[in-house]
Amino acid sequence: MIIVMKRDASSRELSTVVTRVEELGYRAHLSHGEERTIIGVIGNGRPLNREHIERMSGVERTLPILRPFKLAGRDFQPQDTVVEVNGVTIGGQQLIVMAGPCAVESREQLLEAAHAVKKAGASVLRGGAFKPRTSPYDFQGLGEEGLHLLAEARQEVGMPVVTEVMDPQLVPLIATYADILQVGARSMQNYALLHAVGEAQRPVLLKRGMMSTVEELLMAAEYILSHGNKRVILCERGIRTFETYTRNTLDINAIPVLKGLTHLPVVADPSHGTGKWELVAPAARAAVAAGADGLIIEVHPHPEQALSDGAQSLKPERFAALMDELRLVAEAVGRKI
Amino acid sequence: MIIVMKRDASSRELSTVVTRVEELGYRAHLSHGEERTIIGVIGNGRPLNREHIERMSGVERTLPILRPFKLAGRDFQPQDTVVEVNGVTIGGQQLIVMAGPCAVESREQLLEAAHAVKKAGASVLRGGAFKPRTSPYDFQGLGEEGLHLLAEARQEVGMPVVTEVMDPQLVPLIATYADILQVGARSMQNYALLHAVGEAQRPVLLKRGMMSTVEELLMAAEYILSHGNKRVILCERGIRTFETYTRNTLDINAIPVLKGLTHLPVVADPSHGTGKWELVAPAARAAVAAGADGLIIEVHPHPEQALSDGAQSLKPERFAALMDELRLVAEAVGRKI
Amino acid sequence: MIIVMKRDASSRELSTVVTRVEELGYRAHLSHGEERTIIGVIGNGRPLNREHIERMSGVERTLPILRPFKLAGRDFQPQDTVVEVNGVTIGGQQLIVMAGPCAVESREQLLEAAHAVKKAGASVLRGGAFKPRTSPYDFQGLGEEGLHLLAEARQEVGMPVVTEVMDPQLVPLIATYADILQVGARSMQNYALLHAVGEAQRPVLLKRGMMSTVEELLMAAEYILSHGNKRVILCERGIRTFETYTRNTLDINAIPVLKGLTHLPVVADPSHGTGKWELVAPAARAAVAAGADGLIIEVHPHPEQALSDGAQSLKPERFAALMDELRLVAEAVGRKI
Amino acid sequence: MIIVMKRDASSRELSTVVTRVEELGYRAHLSHGEERTIIGVIGNGRPLNREHIERMSGVERTLPILRPFKLAGRDFQPQDTVVEVNGVTIGGQQLIVMAGPCAVESREQLLEAAHAVKKAGASVLRGGAFKPRTSPYDFQGLGEEGLHLLAEARQEVGMPVVTEVMDPQLVPLIATYADILQVGARSMQNYALLHAVGEAQRPVLLKRGMMSTVEELLMAAEYILSHGNKRVILCERGIRTFETYTRNTLDINAIPVLKGLTHLPVVADPSHGTGKWELVAPAARAAVAAGADGLIIEVHPHPEQALSDGAQSLKPERFAALMDELRLVAEAVGRKI
Repeated sequence: MIIVMKRDASSRELSTVVTRVEELGYRAHLSHGEERTIIGVIGNGRPLNREHIERMSGVERTLPILRPFKLAGRDFQPQDTVVEVNGVTIGGQQLIVMAGPCAVESREQLLEAAHAVKKAGASVLRGGAFKPRTSPYDFQGLGEEGLHLLAEARQEVGMPVVTEVMDPQLVPLIATYADILQVGARSMQNYALLHAVGEAQRPVLLKRGMMSTVEELLMAAEYILSHGNKRVILCERGIRTFETYTRNTLDINAIPVLKGLTHLPVVADPSHGTGKWELVAPAARAAVAAGADGLIIEVHPHPEQALSDGAQSLKPERFAALMDELRLVAEAVGRKI
Repeated sequence: MIIVMKRDASSRELSTVVTRVEELGYRAHLSHGEERTIIGVIGNGRPLNREHIERMSGVERTLPILRPFKLAGRDFQPQDTVVEVNGVTIGGQQLIVMAGPCAVESREQLLEAAHAVKKAGASVLRGGAFKPRTSPYDFQGLGEEGLHLLAEARQEVGMPVVTEVMDPQLVPLIATYADILQVGARSMQNYALLHAVGEAQRPVLLKRGMMSTVEELLMAAEYILSHGNKRVILCERGIRTFETYTRNTLDINAIPVLKGLTHLPVVADPSHGTGKWELVAPAARAAVAAGADGLIIEVHPHPEQALSDGAQSLKPERFAALMDELRLVAEAVGRKI
Repeated sequence: MIIVMKRDASSRELSTVVTRVEELGYRAHLSHGEERTIIGVIGNGRPLNREHIERMSGVERTLPILRPFKLAGRDFQPQDTVVEVNGVTIGGQQLIVMAGPCAVESREQLLEAAHAVKKAGASVLRGGAFKPRTSPYDFQGLGEEGLHLLAEARQEVGMPVVTEVMDPQLVPLIATYADILQVGARSMQNYALLHAVGEAQRPVLLKRGMMSTVEELLMAAEYILSHGNKRVILCERGIRTFETYTRNTLDINAIPVLKGLTHLPVVADPSHGTGKWELVAPAARAAVAAGADGLIIEVHPHPEQALSDGAQSLKPERFAALMDELRLVAEAVGRKI
Repeated sequence: MIIVMKRDASSRELSTVVTRVEELGYRAHLSHGEERTIIGVIGNGRPLNREHIERMSGVERTLPILRPFKLAGRDFQPQDTVVEVNGVTIGGQQLIVMAGPCAVESREQLLEAAHAVKKAGASVLRGGAFKPRTSPYDFQGLGEEGLHLLAEARQEVGMPVVTEVMDPQLVPLIATYADILQVGARSMQNYALLHAVGEAQRPVLLKRGMMSTVEELLMAAEYILSHGNKRVILCERGIRTFETYTRNTLDINAIPVLKGLTHLPVVADPSHGTGKWELVAPAARAAVAAGADGLIIEVHPHPEQALSDGAQSLKPERFAALMDELRLVAEAVGRKI
């Protein structure tokens, strides 16, 4: 950390800050510039709380030098993490496509979707049993019945299943049915939930909050990692901006940024990232071209009847066409689907 | 809801949409303009899922006419809700100031803060026992021990206590100690939590998410109201914008907007809304001038030693001076503190 | 336009609004819903000023039905505009890469860059002579001397040249040297400048403002088109969001959105869109995969000595490698470079 | 400036960076931490281009220590600047209210508004002759005819006049009619215009761009100051955020932030800052309570007939009532109107 003293800080203020830094177990290294004196705080392995210093008399501001995440960073682990789940590997050479309906609505709907996405080349089946909805009057998912249907679909089509968990209490239940636990965008900073999935024996698909920075996403991953679960998959799913034409703005920059900062696999969600089915294909191709390790895509056999997110779901035939496009783009960037 | 048909929609597409609207139990009212045909959907009391229609052939887009919240809106209840808690009324003529440390750190710290804010004129004591922190390595609060200390402080100074709840499982425990349950900004769309506090017998202080629109805040309140708890207090606490000089941007517009849309009391949090102690006073005065029903302010006897949010906490003497300023501003807008 | 009346609007207020709509030369079409009466305003070809109506008694709000742009829209011209400049066509099957230094710094620097980008496959040379800089103390460009150098480079390498114009007075001068006039992001709503380039006999590269919506970009294009210049090329160059890790957030969604709404060519600027050279390649590949008609990329022979934007400039050898990657991605989406 | 070296930077890379810093005329001061080596760059009065260093091998990133503005900052001039124009002083104890119609539409409209705002206590008359409009099909202002009317109104009511200038070429013309030159939000980074008003003999009202940080606003002021014009008044007028209920989000925090960083007067525009007339009064009161030196407010005798911004204009009687409210709030914070 760097401490910038005010222009008119007195030498007494300076020495008080230095003393405080040293009391806290750090070394202080002074540098007298023409307009400001700055103090380099030399660490002892533990981060120093910036706010303790910023409130001291004579201090203008502080600047962090190190990134706040550790376990998630490439400093800690340079080589890529590859998450293995039921024979599917995420984060390797092969791109993984997770697909299926936004919400599990019925046995027929789920199985029709599952067979279709499997046939088109998806490796993981997605489907929501417990749905976060902005309105209490909207369909909230089938709950445990949805989990039974997911388990049945997994059995029938032979694909691992990813589903969202919102309530820490339900982690053990959902973990008995699902192969991958999804932490949704609205739950990215639900620390009780991060704690709970950090102790689960299942890989976690962690979605970036719609107004969370890349660093905050990595700090949320850090919560899970620090509770012992090393199998975390990050997901860029669009951020909230001033643009209202699309539901969210898929942050394509975040994909290479994350790949540079962390060893964890990074997938993209072009369905939520755009909110409009006709934009899903170009956004999916872009994510692959930018280096994503996979995609998660909403597919519904009859989107116009979907109980949730119909506007952004692909029909099975469009999804199959998209998979063909993605194979070409993946190959162009030296990957495979 | 209004359905806008595409410019080149066929009459067959139009009639299919009309049939669908009628099948769903609504009436369709056509209006043929020069460039577009639009369909007015006349309600049956239940909202129509826009996405069912937007995916239909020939449809360009849909426009909602009604706001999605009901119980929270002034259409439903024109007169102001006044929340009463242990003799303190929030939402009436009197402005209420809630104050205290960000986190409960020790018996001494809490009691010192409690006596100071009480003396300066605060009506409710704030203090966090379970803290949401972006880093798993930061102080996470004293937990249940903090609740004991809050109960002791309430007893000693005679003020109701507000504290944050993050985990739905802990609602019953926290409700036995706290007079007001706070749902923090990061939990505003934690639906399991909204459900749990909706069934609690305690008023709820619901903070706006830093990424949430005014409408989403009201929909979160709607969750609580629809589960039977009518005592909801809304809190504007700053939103995330591109400006980085302040930690958040206190959305002063939101105060009169909310007062117009809802009957619920609206308070403001200038501490989180700015993130810098030297901005707390001007932001607090502004919130009162804009019509807030109260404030929640962080006060710490020794901010430079605070384990959390020291940079935005006021010292007791500054808080007392601010209370004097606020009395004058409140009077200028016809209110009292 | 749709007018939504307040729930408690009187019949007198309703009839006053209807009369006003008719006085203004439109027809009013009423639809009485359960909770609101709405009025469809049927056009006469001219847009109705929403604000005239929104201030009337009994009116809750208005909703526009038609997009505000005309000449830029696909309703007006369904087929793609292809801009031809000195034998280079932009907006067709072939993808166009514009490349060169951010600022023209010297004859040597410009020629070295020009030869390098030409050799690697770029079709248009970029280079700034008049530079918009946030600080008055930064290098402001070589001015007219820079234009001479650009003309010389064009002659020597045989590529058309694009350069920025900021001052409407300088449009005639710059148009004598440049083949394409660039309107920068900060000038997107400089209406005097849009007017001036709208009357120039040169194609215009119009960059999206960093906080401008897609619709505002199209309205800026509308200004140019409405002054008679049909050769407008749109450029997505990153928007400002809360994320600070990258300088801007390249809005990849905007590319397919624009291609759907307008017939004008759309290119992307991954250099400004990311602000970091190491992100330029993934963002460029993503833009091509998302359907961009071209790219504009900063290349500098010695980025560490650049007087402007060195952090986001590619070295010639990296640019050449990127061109090879882009050829593969372009082919994967059925285009050519 | 601080240079942070990469964790694995070699000693050769380190010495190359140090040599470069010294070649550029600065001194380098090394500090070896546990995880990173950092270099403090000790200045020679001129700022060092960060990008020159960031592209060097072994460098992770750089951190600026000093704010980039000088003439605008309190380091340069601690005491408040008070702008005097025709007997009106802006930036002193007295709060100044500028009011009038968005656009000058006719002699009658302008004079009616001018008399009304004068009577209610405004000190400066506002009115647009040249209007920036997002659509080329909207009313663009009366142009020079509008300037004549403003001059007539000034004569008749005896108030200085503020009007917007968009085109650098028109600065001399407008300066012959107007007492204060307004640079609008969309022009805040129009450097040709900043240069032109910097050389004019008139005070400048500089509005913050809706996409601009506080620091960028100060850098725009720096342009004007560095061209010799010391009479700059800053204006917070709302920023663009994700919230769509209001047209903009008035950044109330920016008022005390600016007052801390700069000696220039700061006024607020609650009309554009909210976009809705019913929010103007609470936002205006809030701005005064937060420490603004004045306000600029749109007043129109017949807002429902306004050719521009009718939705946010106050009627004269509401403006007069607001002035009464503002007098009370001003007094509460120790100021006068």
